[in-house]
Amino acid sequence: MIETRIAIDAMGGEYGVSVTVPAALSLLRDHKMVFFYLVGDEPQIRAQLEMVGYTGNKIEIIHTPYLLTDKDKPTRALRAKEKSSLYMAVELVKDKLAGACVSAGNTGALLLAGRHLLGTLPGIDKPAIVAVIPGASKNCLLLDVGANVDCKAQQLFQFAVMGSVLAESMGVMQPASVGLLNIGVEDYKGNEQVRTAASLLEQCSSINYTGYVEGNALFSGTVDVVVCDGFVGNVTIKSSAGVVEVVNSLLRSRMQGSLASKLLSLVSFPLIRRLQSRINPAQYNGASLLGLQGSIIKSHSNAGSEAFAYAIQRAITEAESAIPRLIAQRVAEIVGVSMQQEAAV
Amino acid sequence: MIETRIAIDAMGGEYGVSVTVPAALSLLRDHKMVFFYLVGDEPQIRAQLEMVGYTGNKIEIIHTPYLLTDKDKPTRALRAKEKSSLYMAVELVKDKLAGACVSAGNTGALLLAGRHLLGTLPGIDKPAIVAVIPGASKNCLLLDVGANVDCKAQQLFQFAVMGSVLAESMGVMQPASVGLLNIGVEDYKGNEQVRTAASLLEQCSSINYTGYVEGNALFSGTVDVVVCDGFVGNVTIKSSAGVVEVVNSLLRSRMQGSLASKLLSLVSFPLIRRLQSRINPAQYNGASLLGLQGSIIKSHSNAGSEAFAYAIQRAITEAESAIPRLIAQRVAEIVGVSMQQEAAV
Repeated sequence: MIETRIAIDAMGGEYGVSVTVPAALSLLRDHKMVFFYLVGDEPQIRAQLEMVGYTGNKIEIIHTPYLLTDKDKPTRALRAKEKSSLYMAVELVKDKLAGACVSAGNTGALLLAGRHLLGTLPGIDKPAIVAVIPGASKNCLLLDVGANVDCKAQQLFQFAVMGSVLAESMGVMQPASVGLLNIGVEDYKGNEQVRTAASLLEQCSSINYTGYVEGNALFSGTVDVVVCDGFVGNVTIKSSAGVVEVVNSLLRSRMQGSLASKLLSLVSFPLIRRLQSRINPAQYNGASLLGLQGSIIKSHSNAGSEAFAYAIQRAITEAESAIPRLIAQRVAEIVGVSMQQEAAV
Repeated sequence: MIETRIAIDAMGGEYGVSVTVPAALSLLRDHKMVFFYLVGDEPQIRAQLEMVGYTGNKIEIIHTPYLLTDKDKPTRALRAKEKSSLYMAVELVKDKLAGACVSAGNTGALLLAGRHLLGTLPGIDKPAIVAVIPGASKNCLLLDVGANVDCKAQQLFQFAVMGSVLAESMGVMQPASVGLLNIGVEDYKGNEQVRTAASLLEQCSSINYTGYVEGNALFSGTVDVVVCDGFVGNVTIKSSAGVVEVVNSLLRSRMQGSLASKLLSLVSFPLIRRLQSRINPAQYNGASLLGLQGSIIKSHSNAGSEAFAYAIQRAITEAESAIPRLIAQRVAEIVGVSMQQEAAV
């Protein structure tokens, strides 16, 4: 069995090495066959490793003094003379030294570095970001959640293909069911892009397209994959996280106040804990950038160690299942089928 | 003091008269100065009234045998020979017999009837639907949530004006703060419509525009009004409702199972009840269609009596505060200011 090698942008995110390095170390305890490149400022990374007395041989530091922040314009990632930790992590994937990379850094920069260094897969116009949405009964994949603010119908179709492949690699029974996010389920609802995408999907026998779905379908277990443009998807995941935050703050406020309500809180603590753990966003951290010739995982920038470890875990899984190759195969199948159909006409 | 007269589409929604009539009667108990037109099938409405033995003089039945369902194409609302209960309820507003109307019927049809019968206010291109979003610390208005799938920058600007007026009429200290929904707070984020709307809002001194906000801001109490196109807004409210449903179903499932967990649920019941009542969607039922020369309130089609009563309550409040007139005044002020600015240049 060959080691899975993952490149980690150690400087990305709000907390940098204080989150990324402990997260990487926590995974080394459970995974014997992984190896990490920690990319970033060597003295800072080394200080973190020394703090816990790490002396193993499963980590290599790739030094760069440059880093990008969320405030930097994404194009800055491509400055040749100042290779940031984010850029160099993607470069390790390009050079086949790493099977996937993870960054909590600037999303736009990560997309740009991905397209520039890895390129998109044949048949895919632009990469999309995928989020895992926790439902009451099962999870659901949502894409795009922020890479493309405006999407043509053809792109929405490609998202459906990529989402199906990822869902199936994550254990969903083939064929994964796909819905198109809309403001109603009636045929006449929605904008032109969505309606055109619907007709493209209806014509494609290789995708298990089930029709329009509304926002609540993300959580009801209706479909395995939900497709939308990146503006809608981004607002959706952030507003859903906002609701969870309201619930959490209401639960917290109940734990203060009168002695009676404190006692009550104490007794109901296990219940609340179970509720919070089910809706804990940490376990859904790590969004795949799909459609590139290589695997990139984006972590939330404010992720803590637990959440960042989940993102690294996603990178390991994605590297091991070779998602880009699976997507390329599926696209080739669909293009092949449609060429046969055209030839038959 | 003059009576507030409200027209109610008694047939709209999934449950028709079995929800609308009891909801109307429940409000008559508390409001001495309201009068309802119940529009729809007279025998059905009368049967409901007789069931509770209503003999008062605060209700008038306006009979029509025609009704629209959610499956009907909205344009069907305008068929002159088959005036539906929805259409006739709006007509009562047009004829100044009612100060506002309420319907749980077909949203598209309601918008079309509103534009056809009432017309939009001067300076407003198209009406928008407003939802009240319950936050942890305070409520927030979101518009548009479904009337306009594609919006020009100028429309988003108009939504900001209308949302400010409505928020202030609902008790928010003047000037209400307004955010533009986007996928990030940086200047370069978003699509062209949103960026152009931002520059229009920045130039307008009559609106307290605070900049871009992300999805979670809807619940965090950051701003009083959030503006977006109807596709984004619709998906947002439905996905947020989906999260609430997940939380509710998790809470319900905890109340089953072992004796220990049943006992636990019993003890923690008051806590859960308080949580559920805070996130109870019923109390936020009743979305205003803003921008018309008259007040129309849209109820969820699956609203129960309690929720439909909240929608009627919104109609009463909106009729009493004469929202369309307030919006027209604000628009005139803004146009006046910008004309003065142009003259000064």
